[in-house]
Amino acid sequence: MPVIVQKFGGTSVADTTRILRCARRALEAKQSGNDVIVVVSAMGHTTDELIDLAKQITDAPNPREMDMLMATGEQVSIALMAIALNSLGNNAVSMTGPQMGMLTNEIHTKARIQSINVDRIRKELSAGRIVVAAGFQGVTDDGQITTLGRGGSDTTAVAIAAALLTLGGGAGSVTCEIYTDVDGVYTADPRIVPNARKLARISYEEMLELANQGAAVMHNRAVLFGQKYDVPIHVRSSTKADLGTIVCKETSEMEDIVVAGCALKRDLGRISLRRIPNNPGVQGMVFDCIAKANIIVDDIIQTQHGDLASLSFTVDHNDLADVKIAAGKALDEIGTGELAVEIGLAKVSVAGVGMRTHSGVAAAMFRALGDAGINIANITTSDIKISCIVPKQDGERALKVVHDAFQLDKPQGNWANSPKAVETKPDTRKAVRST
Amino acid sequence: MPVIVQKFGGTSVADTTRILRCARRALEAKQSGNDVIVVVSAMGHTTDELIDLAKQITDAPNPREMDMLMATGEQVSIALMAIALNSLGNNAVSMTGPQMGMLTNEIHTKARIQSINVDRIRKELSAGRIVVAAGFQGVTDDGQITTLGRGGSDTTAVAIAAALLTLGGGAGSVTCEIYTDVDGVYTADPRIVPNARKLARISYEEMLELANQGAAVMHNRAVLFGQKYDVPIHVRSSTKADLGTIVCKETSEMEDIVVAGCALKRDLGRISLRRIPNNPGVQGMVFDCIAKANIIVDDIIQTQHGDLASLSFTVDHNDLADVKIAAGKALDEIGTGELAVEIGLAKVSVAGVGMRTHSGVAAAMFRALGDAGINIANITTSDIKISCIVPKQDGERALKVVHDAFQLDKPQGNWANSPKAVETKPDTRKAVRST
Repeated sequence: MPVIVQKFGGTSVADTTRILRCARRALEAKQSGNDVIVVVSAMGHTTDELIDLAKQITDAPNPREMDMLMATGEQVSIALMAIALNSLGNNAVSMTGPQMGMLTNEIHTKARIQSINVDRIRKELSAGRIVVAAGFQGVTDDGQITTLGRGGSDTTAVAIAAALLTLGGGAGSVTCEIYTDVDGVYTADPRIVPNARKLARISYEEMLELANQGAAVMHNRAVLFGQKYDVPIHVRSSTKADLGTIVCKETSEMEDIVVAGCALKRDLGRISLRRIPNNPGVQGMVFDCIAKANIIVDDIIQTQHGDLASLSFTVDHNDLADVKIAAGKALDEIGTGELAVEIGLAKVSVAGVGMRTHSGVAAAMFRALGDAGINIANITTSDIKISCIVPKQDGERALKVVHDAFQLDKPQGNWANSPKAVETKPDTRKAVRST
Repeated sequence: MPVIVQKFGGTSVADTTRILRCARRALEAKQSGNDVIVVVSAMGHTTDELIDLAKQITDAPNPREMDMLMATGEQVSIALMAIALNSLGNNAVSMTGPQMGMLTNEIHTKARIQSINVDRIRKELSAGRIVVAAGFQGVTDDGQITTLGRGGSDTTAVAIAAALLTLGGGAGSVTCEIYTDVDGVYTADPRIVPNARKLARISYEEMLELANQGAAVMHNRAVLFGQKYDVPIHVRSSTKADLGTIVCKETSEMEDIVVAGCALKRDLGRISLRRIPNNPGVQGMVFDCIAKANIIVDDIIQTQHGDLASLSFTVDHNDLADVKIAAGKALDEIGTGELAVEIGLAKVSVAGVGMRTHSGVAAAMFRALGDAGINIANITTSDIKISCIVPKQDGERALKVVHDAFQLDKPQGNWANSPKAVETKPDTRKAVRST
């Protein structure tokens, strides 16, 4: 029997009326002849409320206990969802992260999935039950409750789908549907760019770049799981029946699309370690300190002046307090240098797998920003994206300017066929990277 | 090292300020040289709020899922308590029912403890940590989360103390402190009887009878655990430093106290199966039906008229809906008879281990109620208690009258030495039972 994993986010299960609506949606999928697994997040703002309770006690709550605390949010949701499904007449059984064998490493509040024992899930599905799985949470192999960090429920859903696919032993098709308060992936955030267009399909890589660059539709870890195990992810609306956007493996048609979408990342801060000796190993030591604090670093830039170097990197504003401590430790170890913190930055990015085979994208982007009088502080690129750091106050305007420049409101592929784009040979990836 | 198990109820941990206050209390015990285990209930009205959410979905939520839902209440409390203790500088670790191996049977929402694996608790105590254990919850041997029913957190606390004592292998002393919003066990509920007196000590048996008869200070299952494993239970105030009441093994001085206390049980209903054939096995079948519905029956009375019998029993008002269904099934099986339901009853009881060796108690109680013009509907007795069913509207007055009649406001033992009491020979328990 085909398996559908349906994930409902916090807004979709914010009250019991909405939980019943999601339950009906799961029931429809079941009645259409699928095995159904429902993954749910905590109701509404529950996670924030729980964090707030802990912060009333101390600014630095114990991370193991934070996981113990936060895991209750999803547990309430799975219980209510299973109660709703049972009341609608279909047997359903809820499972916590520990119960479904969602094994993670031991990094509390930001744990990573290591394996899933899907036997229990399969057994319940075989008995005709709908399985209601707690998103966001897992368990270490010595029984400690962990959580996966923000957006973890998406990861749970895709990981379950992946585990059923790879460990399935010929289980047939497995689909993963992420129900959310937006109805798909757009060429840009429609709240900022009104003429943004919904994409029917987007590749994992483009989705990853856009998520990394601030498009908040899905968590990138979830997309990575999808990419690794080739699970198509259908991002769609929890209130409308319309199809959304399928995140899937790159296809040949996608290569003609130079820019699939653009994104804005706000509230960035930049940490600079200035006037440090540029000895071999300095950078490794600095980022060891940062990694030990479990901080995700955005872009890294180094410049050199004589024997001294200046090492900068951007991080989310929320991580600034932690990163200052970690960077301070690094400077102590170096024994010299200065620490500088800048806030008020934003980053606008474009991504598309067609960049690998088309040049001129970077030039077009810089020109558009320049024409609009927006100053570019830093530039970083990968083979399928280009990012520009701009002042925070210019962020939204920069996104609109870029969206227009690549005609993203028009059916995909237009810009690639315009005279501005230059098609390069398929195997000149290095050349393209240097655009 | 001596072990203290401290249990804090829902009112004591209703907000983060109170959680910190309880945490300081636990820390004091730790700093005085004890190993400390803190057992907590859900914060304030959390359990009721969770039940309310489920009832918004359906009137008959699935019991397994109700346990999944309700268990989150205690999980929030243990996490916050452990966060508080850690923030005050003592290592603490929280444990859910499953984590501490609190094994129960499979009767969801009313599960019974079967065993506790205290190895994990001991390990954490040895490491100098305060263990924060979730009350009210357990796990079946196939990993289903269960709850113990109302008052379950008391049971958890005493069961942990009992397990540490019996499985301790010479662990030394284990004390169990139940912190509550009253400061001990009184001769009667002081909200009803203003001159009620706090008892320094009370025997398990007396406490059990008083709890069974409506004294809501502690859950009787907790007292039973205490009695079975001889764990002294100190019932005391969570806000005052005063000693409370020690519930312990009967001592010889207690035998001089004919009536230790009295209690009122309100909101009773009576179910009667009338005009049923009084064949052998009828009663067994009826109470099989009731037991299958997991309803706790209060008193049972049967009267006979010719070949027909009338079988009545009292239950809590809350169980009336369930019990009507179960009794209806029993009548269907019998094939004849009538079902009658009465509401609006109350029960006043006196209890004391001295009744075993003193007579005249029943007569004094009936006389006092009679003098006050209160009609007695039913009488039931055990060797250490006498109960009278009275109209609900006379309940509080009946309690006061009985409290006065036995001079319970005076130091214990007074009434036994009054001319009204007649001491009987120590081994005439049968005779005393028939008072």
